Amino acid sequence: MPGISTDHAGLETLPLDACLHLLASVPLGRIAFWADGEVVVLPVNHAMDGQDVVFRTASGSKLTAACEQHRVTFEADSYDEQTRSGWSVLVTGRATPVYEEAEIERLGVLGLDPWPTAVGHPYWIRVRPTSITGRRTRGTVGAAS
Amino acid sequence: MPGISTDHAGLETLPLDACLHLLASVPLGRIAFWADGEVVVLPVNHAMDGQDVVFRTASGSKLTAACEQHRVTFEADSYDEQTRSGWSVLVTGRATPVYEEAEIERLGVLGLDPWPTAVGHPYWIRVRPTSITGRRTRGTVGAAS
Repeated sequence: MPGISTDHAGLETLPLDACLHLLASVPLGRIAFWADGEVVVLPVNHAMDGQDVVFRTASGSKLTAACEQHRVTFEADSYDEQTRSGWSVLVTGRATPVYEEAEIERLGVLGLDPWPTAVGHPYWIRVRPTSITGRRTRGTVGAAS
Repeated sequence: MPGISTDHAGLETLPLDACLHLLASVPLGRIAFWADGEVVVLPVNHAMDGQDVVFRTASGSKLTAACEQHRVTFEADSYDEQTRSGWSVLVTGRATPVYEEAEIERLGVLGLDPWPTAVGHPYWIRVRPTSITGRRTRGTVGAAS
């Protein structure tokens, strides 16, 4: 297929605008980071603020600690079992807590629900990307295209 | 709620048998590992073989290299936007390629479709858990219970 880039595994690689569109299309992603000698992966309800991924989290969590290390990875994906097609987008970047009142107020209108609903979520975290990459697979049976 | 354990964020923590059941209930999970100075997260179609997570991957990939380092994290989750309820299970463990013919044949009957469909997938990877943890959130509006 001319005009479509593929990676070493033969998957279609997605341009940045497609990645950003897909990131905004799902309510849930996963934030991954290194903590205590292992990789931790936690689901978060996220929103996009321009090219930044933003989400809320509880204070005192592993995730809050990870944000002090700055380097995190955010992943979102979708998979259709019927068509065996799907996509995934990977964002690597620097995570920083948002402290400015005006900024918190502005983010508040995004209507974001935090994943852990049982406690207060005073912290907004912003992931400023250093790279955004995406891949799509179209499946082998029953795919629409 | 008596009899239900919660973590520091107030989320219900799940017993092992519930974690294993949930891991087997979804077709897609994510394998996360440390590579080239950052955390990489890749979606994989997985299956459960007892308490082990198994999946196929292309040779020569970052993931194959990660398996030589052994330590990986596997995550699966599900989220219902309507009820704002969901679960996530995190498996940390040792990843090893499966080389034995009899073992490959046995795993073959699991009917597993690899995520990247465009190339051959000669490698089965087995993740033998060192820990399996799960959490569930029941949402705040319209949740069934």
